[in-house]
Amino acid sequence: MPSYRAPVEDFTFVFEDFLKVYDNKDLPGFDMLDPETVDAVLTGAGKVAEEVWAPANLPGDAEGCVLENGVVRTPSVYKDAYKAWAEGGWSSVGADPQWGGMGMPGIISSAVTEIGVSSNHALSMYFGLTGAAYSAIAGIAPQEMKEMYVPKMVSGEWCGTMNLTEPHCGTDLKLMRTKAEPQDDGTYRLTGTKIFISGGDHDLADNIIHMVIAKVPGEDGKLANDLSTVNFFLVPKFLVNPDGSLGERNGVSVGSIEKKMGIKGSATCVLNFENAVAWKLGGEPKVKKDADGKERKSSSAGMAGMFQMMNMARVGVGMQGMALASVAYQNAVEYTKERIQGRSLTGKKFPDQAADPIIVHPDVRRMLMTCKSFVEAGRAFTMYLNMEFAKARAGREDAKGDLGMLLTPVLKAYFTDMGFECTNMAMQCFGGHGFVHDNGMEQFVRDSRILPIYEGANGVQALDLVGRKLLGDGGKAYNDYVDLIESFLAENKDDAGVAIMAPALQRGLDDLKTATQWLFDNLAQNPENAGGVSASYLRIFGVVTLGFMWAGMAKSAQEALDSGDGRQSDDFYKAKLVCARFWAEQMMPETASHLMKMQGGAEVMMELTADQF
Amino acid sequence: MPSYRAPVEDFTFVFEDFLKVYDNKDLPGFDMLDPETVDAVLTGAGKVAEEVWAPANLPGDAEGCVLENGVVRTPSVYKDAYKAWAEGGWSSVGADPQWGGMGMPGIISSAVTEIGVSSNHALSMYFGLTGAAYSAIAGIAPQEMKEMYVPKMVSGEWCGTMNLTEPHCGTDLKLMRTKAEPQDDGTYRLTGTKIFISGGDHDLADNIIHMVIAKVPGEDGKLANDLSTVNFFLVPKFLVNPDGSLGERNGVSVGSIEKKMGIKGSATCVLNFENAVAWKLGGEPKVKKDADGKERKSSSAGMAGMFQMMNMARVGVGMQGMALASVAYQNAVEYTKERIQGRSLTGKKFPDQAADPIIVHPDVRRMLMTCKSFVEAGRAFTMYLNMEFAKARAGREDAKGDLGMLLTPVLKAYFTDMGFECTNMAMQCFGGHGFVHDNGMEQFVRDSRILPIYEGANGVQALDLVGRKLLGDGGKAYNDYVDLIESFLAENKDDAGVAIMAPALQRGLDDLKTATQWLFDNLAQNPENAGGVSASYLRIFGVVTLGFMWAGMAKSAQEALDSGDGRQSDDFYKAKLVCARFWAEQMMPETASHLMKMQGGAEVMMELTADQF
Repeated sequence: MPSYRAPVEDFTFVFEDFLKVYDNKDLPGFDMLDPETVDAVLTGAGKVAEEVWAPANLPGDAEGCVLENGVVRTPSVYKDAYKAWAEGGWSSVGADPQWGGMGMPGIISSAVTEIGVSSNHALSMYFGLTGAAYSAIAGIAPQEMKEMYVPKMVSGEWCGTMNLTEPHCGTDLKLMRTKAEPQDDGTYRLTGTKIFISGGDHDLADNIIHMVIAKVPGEDGKLANDLSTVNFFLVPKFLVNPDGSLGERNGVSVGSIEKKMGIKGSATCVLNFENAVAWKLGGEPKVKKDADGKERKSSSAGMAGMFQMMNMARVGVGMQGMALASVAYQNAVEYTKERIQGRSLTGKKFPDQAADPIIVHPDVRRMLMTCKSFVEAGRAFTMYLNMEFAKARAGREDAKGDLGMLLTPVLKAYFTDMGFECTNMAMQCFGGHGFVHDNGMEQFVRDSRILPIYEGANGVQALDLVGRKLLGDGGKAYNDYVDLIESFLAENKDDAGVAIMAPALQRGLDDLKTATQWLFDNLAQNPENAGGVSASYLRIFGVVTLGFMWAGMAKSAQEALDSGDGRQSDDFYKAKLVCARFWAEQMMPETASHLMKMQGGAEVMMELTADQF
Repeated sequence: MPSYRAPVEDFTFVFEDFLKVYDNKDLPGFDMLDPETVDAVLTGAGKVAEEVWAPANLPGDAEGCVLENGVVRTPSVYKDAYKAWAEGGWSSVGADPQWGGMGMPGIISSAVTEIGVSSNHALSMYFGLTGAAYSAIAGIAPQEMKEMYVPKMVSGEWCGTMNLTEPHCGTDLKLMRTKAEPQDDGTYRLTGTKIFISGGDHDLADNIIHMVIAKVPGEDGKLANDLSTVNFFLVPKFLVNPDGSLGERNGVSVGSIEKKMGIKGSATCVLNFENAVAWKLGGEPKVKKDADGKERKSSSAGMAGMFQMMNMARVGVGMQGMALASVAYQNAVEYTKERIQGRSLTGKKFPDQAADPIIVHPDVRRMLMTCKSFVEAGRAFTMYLNMEFAKARAGREDAKGDLGMLLTPVLKAYFTDMGFECTNMAMQCFGGHGFVHDNGMEQFVRDSRILPIYEGANGVQALDLVGRKLLGDGGKAYNDYVDLIESFLAENKDDAGVAIMAPALQRGLDDLKTATQWLFDNLAQNPENAGGVSASYLRIFGVVTLGFMWAGMAKSAQEALDSGDGRQSDDFYKAKLVCARFWAEQMMPETASHLMKMQGGAEVMMELTADQF
């Protein structure tokens, strides 16, 4: 069975050496951070993850969820594991103290989330969606609703869900048919079917608060064919009495649960809403005038809460890719140190054994180094983005405005693609033993396979990057980002650490710039190019972004080695420099071929008729 | 549930337009081929595959295999499906008529095998291993053993297996502990444990003939630490009486079966051999003198039969990658034509529908085109190699000697990596619906995940390519192959079809030559480079090889279009030209980045100590 060890040293490196978190006491919540507190959080959450959550991962997959008499039963090992996490406060590290949380900044709560996902992805989802739901409620609901729902969700007594997809309607929300009819008392009655609802029903919490988007019918009772009347609703499984006790069952039931490839401990439900009592959280649609003078209702006020949830979820899903790669990698390292097979190409390394451990073989190391260098740069980038979000919220002068928006689709898609590649490499290190259920490596592959799909398939993320994030603001956020990297390279041109990455990063950045220019030059002539080249464009973006992280981390590691006063061992810092070099030599070259692919354009993809396929 | 349609038109294109099979009547077995016969075989096998095997694929996965009271039960839907294939003669298309087969050449039997794998990978494995086993027996066993075993295996009454792996011994066969002790009657008694034995026991056939490698103890009763005493044994599950009836049970039993990620209908067994009666098929080890004059026993005579089985299996496994990509692709095409979501980037294509079918989106097409262009070139290459094997066997002047040996590891590893990538792309086209068991797409992903592992993990194939196939003969086979492609390009420099691929293929070939030169230049200095860069080298080889196929097929398609007398529609031939262009623009660029990765070398991979991971 796989094991897990919370990567406390690596978090510490990112916080202290790389991001210098303790020099940023002015950022919201950062004043409460000191090395002892952060260590206590990481090791505390780590202990539950290592000793309770990780051991429940394989049995949870084997048992899965079942639907019996309309009630979803989660794996039996989940009950105590759920409680241990909630009662330790690990689900509420980032929540506002007024609701019972620890009030720590996102960089810390996100480290705890990573620890949870690595140790038990399926189980962590109940908390992840609850966190997204209570954040939305705390953000936009009226005060009395906040008080009614948020504390119980922060404590883990109640859970939350996110309801978008319908059988015929995934990415294209305009097709939505779930309707919310206004009532005289200000509530709504919600009717429709939502599918793929993670944690849509289960036995881990006393109540489940569903966050649902639905259309408000027009005066003729009909649903609009666009997003103009979509709004965001709160629909509890059990209605809540004014004193906070549970009232009668609301009109929402589980139609079925999906038998899936992975995350089998996470109940994926079809939810049937039938005249369910619902509270509207979104604002009224604003009427805007189009360029041609026609009036058009904008959905943004109604959908704002859901967009916030989706953006949180996208960042969270990207992180899941890194978190699963991390635990799969850890187990691959252990196995390749123990499994003996064949001899080193440069002669026996362990002559007293019948063979050498397979970690001596370069191709095995290529796979391990790919995982290690992705996971560590991915972790750093997640925290880096969290710092940027904090700076932006604090309105600090050095905040790079739209960086978070620009990079959210990159984080979601590149991290989940790489996460899946890495769980596969880690499994490959086990040979045939990786394919066997009981060794747990194939579960990481199956679990991670959902990541490129949910919260917007990666193709949709790529189109979001090109369409909204790059072209949407005429390249402003993109230009700021390129300036940021180029300034960094210019400022550190004499730094021995940065020098490891600098030439490869500059080459990658040049490819990114050529790719971007190609997009600006070739979209007007053929709009299909936006979709046809977007996957390659996003990949270039991802490779360069983690190259930028490695440049920064190499600088920090070199500093620590030079000064001798870092908290980690010299071996630890030297390994960072080796990973930076690996990224430069083995990962950065990818930009070259993806640029060439882009230059082919979409034409060849569009040439066949549907029947010629 | 997924469906399957045998790609008869595409086989016909490969046979008639591309390979001009009917112009090669001199090759063994080709004299019996004509369009009507070949059509009858393809549609006959196709009918069973479409109507019986494909519908049994999903239920077989759901039910899996169970071990009860020492007996393995296969999925209940397999019984009739197994019989339908055997009784139709589809398991013996390529077998010698003297043993009851149809005696058709490998290009035809391999098409039938592809059809079987596409429609039901797990079920096809029982026949695949039986074929490899009876070919070995028919090749090297004494006449009376051939007569005793081969006809019953050809007919499907009995099955066969291939036994190499042991718990502590996968790639490194020197570690093998299974021993075969000689008896006075010329037989052996075999004792040991073999694992990962596909079809090691099951209820589909009356007897199972195990082909096993084991060590013959020395005079001191001890097993050698090398391969010098390894030999190849036949061990039937039931001993066979001289009249062909089944005698008593032999000393081989099932210890357990593996619960696996995929191919759940294929029973993967731990086999315990305890004094099992065994017949030795390999020759006596030859004594050679080393360069330093020391005597060394060569294992080649003893292992020859197993090497033949392994080589057949490697080609077969590569083909499985293409076959699974093929069926997954077919289902993705159907889904993307039906599923409506969003609008084309160039305006509504189906204005009377609520949305356009997702096959209008360029990124969806990118995935479909990748699958299509891999599958069709992969199929062509499998057949091309089969022709080359036939030419070599016939001793024909234009036979390219060692091409098959050189390209076997490329076929095994590149096809299975691409097969897995393509089943994943096909699943991705389904969005969340791809992750759900009942839609069957995730099964193709899980089933195809074994392919990069079994019959030698792909890292081992890459090392075989660099170590044995390239350097082993000082680059001779490689040089012949490069000459072959360059001659083709030179001879066809004015061909309109070839022109589509020529510049990209030449660029890829130049990258391959640079890569090869890099290997020759950098191995002496650091032997680790062989392993560190081999994965990228093999990938370059694979991309160029299928580019060569596309150049050839584009030439054939253009010829058919120009002459107007091809058997397929103009739309079919035009689609070939588009696929060739897709390969040129979207796949060939990969060689550039892999060459850059190679030029980094293995040094960075070897730098960390095991504890630094």
